[in-house]
Amino acid sequence: MNNYADRLLKAIEKKQNPSIVGLDPRLEQIPSFIKEDMIEKHGKTFEAAAESFLVFNKRIIDAVKDIVPAVKPQIAFYEKYLGHGLRVFVETVKYARKKGLVVIEDGKRNDIGSTAQAYSQGHLGKVDMFGEPVSAIDVDCITVNPYLGIDGIKPFIDDVKAHGKGIFVLVKTSNPSAGDFQDLKIGEKPMYEHVAGLVARWNEDTIGTRGYGSVGAVVGATYPQEAVALRKLMPKSIFLVPGYGAQGGDASGVVPNFNPDGFGAVVNSSRGIIFAYQKENYREEDFDKAARDAAQDMKDKINAALKDAGKRAW
Amino acid sequence: MNNYADRLLKAIEKKQNPSIVGLDPRLEQIPSFIKEDMIEKHGKTFEAAAESFLVFNKRIIDAVKDIVPAVKPQIAFYEKYLGHGLRVFVETVKYARKKGLVVIEDGKRNDIGSTAQAYSQGHLGKVDMFGEPVSAIDVDCITVNPYLGIDGIKPFIDDVKAHGKGIFVLVKTSNPSAGDFQDLKIGEKPMYEHVAGLVARWNEDTIGTRGYGSVGAVVGATYPQEAVALRKLMPKSIFLVPGYGAQGGDASGVVPNFNPDGFGAVVNSSRGIIFAYQKENYREEDFDKAARDAAQDMKDKINAALKDAGKRAW
Repeated sequence: MNNYADRLLKAIEKKQNPSIVGLDPRLEQIPSFIKEDMIEKHGKTFEAAAESFLVFNKRIIDAVKDIVPAVKPQIAFYEKYLGHGLRVFVETVKYARKKGLVVIEDGKRNDIGSTAQAYSQGHLGKVDMFGEPVSAIDVDCITVNPYLGIDGIKPFIDDVKAHGKGIFVLVKTSNPSAGDFQDLKIGEKPMYEHVAGLVARWNEDTIGTRGYGSVGAVVGATYPQEAVALRKLMPKSIFLVPGYGAQGGDASGVVPNFNPDGFGAVVNSSRGIIFAYQKENYREEDFDKAARDAAQDMKDKINAALKDAGKRAW
Repeated sequence: MNNYADRLLKAIEKKQNPSIVGLDPRLEQIPSFIKEDMIEKHGKTFEAAAESFLVFNKRIIDAVKDIVPAVKPQIAFYEKYLGHGLRVFVETVKYARKKGLVVIEDGKRNDIGSTAQAYSQGHLGKVDMFGEPVSAIDVDCITVNPYLGIDGIKPFIDDVKAHGKGIFVLVKTSNPSAGDFQDLKIGEKPMYEHVAGLVARWNEDTIGTRGYGSVGAVVGATYPQEAVALRKLMPKSIFLVPGYGAQGGDASGVVPNFNPDGFGAVVNSSRGIIFAYQKENYREEDFDKAARDAAQDMKDKINAALKDAGKRAW
């Protein structure tokens, strides 16, 4: 199926779950038995750090793959471990896709047109391999920053159309200072609504068979009131809703991001799922079981909140 | 010298040159004798592509190192060649710094606080190596996107102060659609002036012995009129001025970005320098000589334009 929105919605329907897991590994929180094993193999090196992430991620993916429709690896946590880190990021992407998960890369990439094209080729499309176009990182979807305007977004949209990929454009982020610029008033309207209007327009050319398009919006779980207005401004865009769990967003707060049909949003939790073993006093060895239980709990809570609000849920 | 602004200005003074070279390798434009050599060694692989960049970059660096104070590698062009690409990016950074050049990474990174910290640790500061803090990519300075507000910028500023590093915040970018959001009016003022006011404030804590600070601004060479106002709003910030050459900015157009003391800006050209051999009909083998000649020409033109405008120049 070569429309990203269709693929994502089908996966949500299959898992009966609009919540997803963020793969944001932090070395200090990786179980020590994994790290000790990798230090023994590679010493205290960038390679050992990166390989620890890969072992960790594979067990998390195996533990949640029948519960969630998608995972969202955050590339910042990988590239800090240099070439090995990026290699392991790519291996994580491949592993998750092989296991039937949609992969949404959190990269917040942005640049002027010709450079945005280089990012898009590397992350979504094809790169030049001595004259042959070949896939590189090859995620299903990537987050992008709109500050440079349409010519920094267009190369990504071209690859969305050419390769059945998706993007989520930052509209209203989940962090406390999101409003520093995003809330500034342009005439009567806040900046983020202005961005939302453009996202809705960019999305029009990408609508799949289920009525949703592949140009979506990032709308933080921490701003439920703003989500009401944004849902109306972008009726056919899927929202990526970060900030559930560790950042303070709760299940009832994410409801406004959904349409009455129960679709239209995916809600992400990262630390709250993958490092649940630390909070809930599981044994280190059971970190994947803890993640599975936390993912199931998030699914149940969000579906219950949707049902309570009279929206379709499973 | 542990203040980035001091280091950069000293380098500018030593080379008598405020112009810099962007290292944005594109495989299709790398001389074929380099590519053939690498294909022979590694096949048509990501490794061969990345290694071609490294050979190319080292010769460019050697050719311009006594002319320019700094180089600006654009990470988009490297990460598209996966782990090998990022490894070669890091090797390029190391090589340039060893040759006495300041390295300004064009990465336009941005995220919420805890993730921005991961980017900053990887690119500017120290990463956790099993309990020990170690340097990773370790550039002198990185470009950052302000759309997420102060808590996405603060982790970078913390590393600027702790490790003598710098950032350039996107204010008014060089691309045609820069104005889509950056020019929107907040009350009487365009958005980019609002960002400029915050950059000036963030810069205050980082002022070095020469009166300039390490929190600078990206101001495109393609918008000379806007630069006049921005120079006044951020008197102690250094401007990174992209868009000279291939993007259409010329020497007289960049003059407003400089203070009367002849400092306050670095002007970048990428394609116009590193691929000068294609435009000027040099032999492929002389691509580095072509780059050297183009770098010297840019230096001469910008210094002449500064002198014409009554600003200090060499």
